[in-house]
Amino acid sequence: MATEVKTTIEEVRSQIRSELADYLAGQRTYLTSIASELVPVCDALDEFLLDGGKRLRPLFAYAGLIASGASPTREIIRAISSLELLQACALIHDDLMDRSDTRRGKPAIHRHFENLHQSQAMNGLATQFGEAAAVLLGDLALVWSDQMLNTSSISTESLLAAHLIHDEMRVELMAGQYLDVREAGEKSYSAERSLRIARYKSGKYTIERPLHIGAVIGKPAGNSELLNALSRYGLPLGEAFQLRDDLLGIFGDPSVTGKPAGDDLREGKRTVLIAMTLEALGEVEKSELLAHLGKSNLSPAKIEELRTIITNSGAVEKVEKLIEKLTQESLSAIEDPAIHPSSREFLTYIALSAVKRSA
Amino acid sequence: MATEVKTTIEEVRSQIRSELADYLAGQRTYLTSIASELVPVCDALDEFLLDGGKRLRPLFAYAGLIASGASPTREIIRAISSLELLQACALIHDDLMDRSDTRRGKPAIHRHFENLHQSQAMNGLATQFGEAAAVLLGDLALVWSDQMLNTSSISTESLLAAHLIHDEMRVELMAGQYLDVREAGEKSYSAERSLRIARYKSGKYTIERPLHIGAVIGKPAGNSELLNALSRYGLPLGEAFQLRDDLLGIFGDPSVTGKPAGDDLREGKRTVLIAMTLEALGEVEKSELLAHLGKSNLSPAKIEELRTIITNSGAVEKVEKLIEKLTQESLSAIEDPAIHPSSREFLTYIALSAVKRSA
Repeated sequence: MATEVKTTIEEVRSQIRSELADYLAGQRTYLTSIASELVPVCDALDEFLLDGGKRLRPLFAYAGLIASGASPTREIIRAISSLELLQACALIHDDLMDRSDTRRGKPAIHRHFENLHQSQAMNGLATQFGEAAAVLLGDLALVWSDQMLNTSSISTESLLAAHLIHDEMRVELMAGQYLDVREAGEKSYSAERSLRIARYKSGKYTIERPLHIGAVIGKPAGNSELLNALSRYGLPLGEAFQLRDDLLGIFGDPSVTGKPAGDDLREGKRTVLIAMTLEALGEVEKSELLAHLGKSNLSPAKIEELRTIITNSGAVEKVEKLIEKLTQESLSAIEDPAIHPSSREFLTYIALSAVKRSA
Repeated sequence: MATEVKTTIEEVRSQIRSELADYLAGQRTYLTSIASELVPVCDALDEFLLDGGKRLRPLFAYAGLIASGASPTREIIRAISSLELLQACALIHDDLMDRSDTRRGKPAIHRHFENLHQSQAMNGLATQFGEAAAVLLGDLALVWSDQMLNTSSISTESLLAAHLIHDEMRVELMAGQYLDVREAGEKSYSAERSLRIARYKSGKYTIERPLHIGAVIGKPAGNSELLNALSRYGLPLGEAFQLRDDLLGIFGDPSVTGKPAGDDLREGKRTVLIAMTLEALGEVEKSELLAHLGKSNLSPAKIEELRTIITNSGAVEKVEKLIEKLTQESLSAIEDPAIHPSSREFLTYIALSAVKRSA
């Protein structure tokens, strides 16, 4: 059964990629007819969208679709693939705001355009050009995501139902992003506030809302029980997903995650894991941890030391237990009669991959 | 007649403001229910959207609507008011990219949040927080513009027709913005390239596309002759509008424009006016102008000198003549039979205000 689901996921991923490639090719034709100077914009977004990515949001939308009992059509796959463009906007703007140099091992978009400015010996400041390009490419990806959804040729009823959720999702995403940025400005860490951010950024944006979008595309009316069941499945799963991310951000294997070891420590990220650690530590170890969080030049030895402090605080075990509890909560919602039986294997499989992953 | 049109414009402006205020109040209730930390986001966007602005894009959409022979309803006014939120995104991101400190005499959004960070003695870098907030508030305004349109309760037929144009318009806007940012990196000025940017940023985004959006909301089908006539009216008008902007950016009265005298000279803006000046000047004066363009510390005396160089080059007269020619071209399209006669006074009036303005 798991093998079948795995094959389906690989097929859906390949369909998503192909719909994105098709949409982007059409946009390239249009934009380069305006001006050849737009070629680097198309190249950069092609590379960003077609070279990788887990396709998490379209896959959860796919899950919501089959949970409604509907079957995927090419039009529907195209509609849900648009979520990748929204995510591209979020990541491009995120990297700019965080001053992250790389994304999936390649230069982040602002760095890429900064390099372009330098290699072409353009007029003005390269960093300013890179930042402006990242603002605009993110905006363009956001606008494209809408256009790809609107022109997907799904039924009008499905489209209108999807819009309502899609619009709310994007407002929640931006609100969650702002709270996240603001959290970095807080003087203290708080597990409660970090959990709330996880709820908006991961619970709702990554999982619950994509599920809902797929569900209402499949069943545009009379779907409230289905949506409620999917929330009961998706919200705890989203939080568990984020908590796994917290653990990987500190204990993940760089060769698997693609990020440097202990990345979240260097970044001083306000995760639930760190907040729980700080709440559990005595004054001495707390000061030691706080003194090093957010220092970009942490040595491997120091990272190992901080990891030990975090593990010994009991926070890792606490977070693992919380993940386990949330996962069980999520899995039990799959049995809800509003969820189409044929989708249950799929829902179970992707839930477990989201929380048991190592990257 | 002009008095009647003027009264209508004032009424429409006040309806636009009231729909925006209503929409924003609903969003405030929602966002502050997520977290009280979102209050400053709501406050800043309220102020940005409700304290001023010419409402140019909704007014051109209104013009397109009555050109179709349809009458405005509250739902339609709400739908076209959403264009102000899109424009808020464009301005907030523009100010960030240009490093502009003020907007309409108040701190630009990134400066406003930088100040907030400082006054609350938050953790981290104030400038980085200000920039991140501007990225996210712009994104939020963009997403809101969609939601305000989608939830305006106009007919489904009108909404779907509006989406097609709205999506294209936003792609053109982002493409035009990128070309504009890129132009600043060019080693040479070019009237041709600057005109192309004016076509996308002003001709299409500010005038033609809003006209089309209003027109298809009023007449969702069988509208191709109407749209063509509105393009013949709107495109030259948009270019003339941008050329007037070029002149005001250098010769405008600060007490009327709200911008410092000679602002475009200090910014080194790549306008059609400057490109035409450079094309007309001899080597000595050309070097003199180029040596001072983009210097933020230009003295009033130097600005006056540069103005004289620009005027004596003949470029001002050339641009005025071009504005006149484009305006005549635009006005003659108003007589097209596809344009509803009852709208002609309005179209004439707003065309003349767009090109004869002093702010």
